[in-house]
Amino acid sequence: MTAERIVIVGADAAGMSAAHHALRVARGSERELAVTVLDKGRHTSYSACGIPYWLAGDVGSGDDLVARTAEEHRAAGIDLRLGAEVTGVDLAGRTVSTAQEEVAFDQLVIASGAHPIVPAWALDAGGTPYERVGAVHTLDDGAAWLDRFEAAEPGAHVVIVGGGYVGIEVAEAALRRGFGVTVLTRSRVMSSLEPEMSDRIALALADACVEVVLDAEVTGFDLDDDGRVAGVHWTGGSRPCDLVVLALGVLPSTEFLAGSGIPVGPKGALRPDARGRVTERVWSAGDCCDYVRRIIGDRVYRPLGTHANKLGRALGENLAGGRRTFDGILETAITRFAGGGEYVEIARTGLSRADAEAAAFDPVSVVTEGTTTSGYFPGAEPLALWVMADRVTRRLLGVQVVGGHGAGKRIDAAAAVLWAGGSVDDLAWMDLSYAPPFSSAWEVLQIAARRVAERI
Amino acid sequence: MTAERIVIVGADAAGMSAAHHALRVARGSERELAVTVLDKGRHTSYSACGIPYWLAGDVGSGDDLVARTAEEHRAAGIDLRLGAEVTGVDLAGRTVSTAQEEVAFDQLVIASGAHPIVPAWALDAGGTPYERVGAVHTLDDGAAWLDRFEAAEPGAHVVIVGGGYVGIEVAEAALRRGFGVTVLTRSRVMSSLEPEMSDRIALALADACVEVVLDAEVTGFDLDDDGRVAGVHWTGGSRPCDLVVLALGVLPSTEFLAGSGIPVGPKGALRPDARGRVTERVWSAGDCCDYVRRIIGDRVYRPLGTHANKLGRALGENLAGGRRTFDGILETAITRFAGGGEYVEIARTGLSRADAEAAAFDPVSVVTEGTTTSGYFPGAEPLALWVMADRVTRRLLGVQVVGGHGAGKRIDAAAAVLWAGGSVDDLAWMDLSYAPPFSSAWEVLQIAARRVAERI
Repeated sequence: MTAERIVIVGADAAGMSAAHHALRVARGSERELAVTVLDKGRHTSYSACGIPYWLAGDVGSGDDLVARTAEEHRAAGIDLRLGAEVTGVDLAGRTVSTAQEEVAFDQLVIASGAHPIVPAWALDAGGTPYERVGAVHTLDDGAAWLDRFEAAEPGAHVVIVGGGYVGIEVAEAALRRGFGVTVLTRSRVMSSLEPEMSDRIALALADACVEVVLDAEVTGFDLDDDGRVAGVHWTGGSRPCDLVVLALGVLPSTEFLAGSGIPVGPKGALRPDARGRVTERVWSAGDCCDYVRRIIGDRVYRPLGTHANKLGRALGENLAGGRRTFDGILETAITRFAGGGEYVEIARTGLSRADAEAAAFDPVSVVTEGTTTSGYFPGAEPLALWVMADRVTRRLLGVQVVGGHGAGKRIDAAAAVLWAGGSVDDLAWMDLSYAPPFSSAWEVLQIAARRVAERI
Repeated sequence: MTAERIVIVGADAAGMSAAHHALRVARGSERELAVTVLDKGRHTSYSACGIPYWLAGDVGSGDDLVARTAEEHRAAGIDLRLGAEVTGVDLAGRTVSTAQEEVAFDQLVIASGAHPIVPAWALDAGGTPYERVGAVHTLDDGAAWLDRFEAAEPGAHVVIVGGGYVGIEVAEAALRRGFGVTVLTRSRVMSSLEPEMSDRIALALADACVEVVLDAEVTGFDLDDDGRVAGVHWTGGSRPCDLVVLALGVLPSTEFLAGSGIPVGPKGALRPDARGRVTERVWSAGDCCDYVRRIIGDRVYRPLGTHANKLGRALGENLAGGRRTFDGILETAITRFAGGGEYVEIARTGLSRADAEAAAFDPVSVVTEGTTTSGYFPGAEPLALWVMADRVTRRLLGVQVVGGHGAGKRIDAAAAVLWAGGSVDDLAWMDLSYAPPFSSAWEVLQIAARRVAERI
């Protein structure tokens, strides 16, 4: 029997999950797989989500963020080729090409990930970001930012363009490094949360002495005599600064598929089915993909490591003959902001109000204030919960939380209800845990759900 | 229209939830209710779960544990009569009697709660507990223990009989007060958890210098010349001590129903249906009740404040013409042990292995070790998760967790899956939250569920 040739483009969470799991499952079956992974970079399987904490000083070294080294992958039987950028795919000929070679496949897995958005105003005439300007995406980016932070004068000012997850995580890092920090955001801070929750986050940032500028579109930079950034201009204002972090999100890295006949969505993202299959012989997972929203059934681009790990693993199993499905996402996400004396956990799951309305639900939502522990317990911290349900079916549609220690992970219980298609009454009345160090006698998630139920 | 006379026996969580909610719902309807609450004690609506933390010094005063005072209840229109012990019920005549009076009802709510088990060996010839011996159940018990703790010599030794929730919470309190502590338990510590989890808790207690004695039945006391406890004897050992805490659980306080014709279960607990109704004109909620286990459908005695609050509220709504059901319990529970340099959160939901086997499931269970945050994140603490599912249907049956900060409340996501009747695959693959300060890239609950799924 000849081994089936699996070629995987991209050696991060999705690609390496697929590689390992395909081999593991095949080992227990009659299939023989030869797995080759091609990646343009120098690193594999690292926690991009950990980079802000590396910059903050919480994580000692970039190596700590590497889950498995190239050597470990190779020891597991994977033919891993780094520095191998795939430039084209010949679907009919079943080959991918790099600068060095053509590699033949029987099954192709595209796990090429994403790249940060770098607007024209951040680029010099040569198309390179100005000095002291950059995104925070790869381990190399992290190392470059660490160098910039260490080279900066005490009291230097960092402008972060973008108020999403990466923006506020880097704001924490910069603040804890002792820099002045400005966050510019095109709409609101953490705009994947409702305005009433976003406001609470903006307030925590402001209380930590982060300057927050809402509704700001960057229009250009001031440069010093050496061509380095010295100030930022935006619609309605400007300020001098020393460093500019681009935290404007990412786009799928699928340019190399142009002309291959492999279909992509409007923004260039691949659209794998629940098994991870895109088209005949082609599979995909990770930040180069759209995912199906479980509640609505439409597709959205939510490039998160947790989805990459899950669909990568499922896809790997299926490559080896398995029947694993990845049954959609809920847009669950969590982060925190800790710095300048403030600490706030932020989490969401399910639809936003705008999404629910667009999907023809009739949403009812309420914000409820509570505490992370029983109110009388020492260290009780405030939290705010936004809960939304459908007026007609009573179905739970979305939950968001902003609050102190222990607030954020409460989102998982809400996500579990959403996953099951449960109602706001399920959330309000199910048997959740209670003891004074952990919650009020009515768990605040349940009080919040009850308050929504009462308004339906 | 004459007001319907609601008489409620017991002024704690269940009774007062019922009282308030009945009045609140009636206010919006055509019904008129006259609500009378009779209680033998002096306090209403206090957090019994908070008493150990009052003893530990975390809570400044017993008043802090009182959610609503008698005055506040009365201001809401409730005829609250304290010091009124109900001694009998005449169902045909629709009256209850106290030492002072007979009170007529149209609907009777029994929310009389529970009382601690006090074995014969703890009682003197007069039937009173020996001096320096007692349970921790009411606010008065708490005040008595606070007095005993404050009167005790530094270095005094406290023996706690019982290794369940109250036992280990009081162990924490006594340890943090600077006393030597022994926990005697008839079987294991926290025996509502599986042995492999219980062992971890026992180890944390031992590491905190709590003496833990397993499989110990108390046989008697040594008394000093003043008739106060000076030592404890058990099967296999004995030790001198200064104080003895009885933490052997509680029994339903339903003795006053003898001869009333109101049916109770084998251990004296009332058996309300999902609406809170026991029989014609009689309702019940709280620690005097059995509850239906949602997974199996049988009844168990699990006297917890969270159930009392929920069924009390549902019952109140139904008294006013509502249609609220309380759809069973999952035996979800949480606590922690913090003292002597140790900190461990403990939580459970669903069936034990023995219960699952008795209910003819074919359980598969695995213990998984993980961390509370990403492993590389500062402050990552170990946790252990026990997950059990049915081999035939893949249904999730039970989850238990023991670990550091943030471990315990993870149980709620598992409870939500159990509530929905979900599978171990739902738990493994649903969209839970991830960021380095909160979990590993695969949330440990999901790794644990996956490991069980792989063994099915």
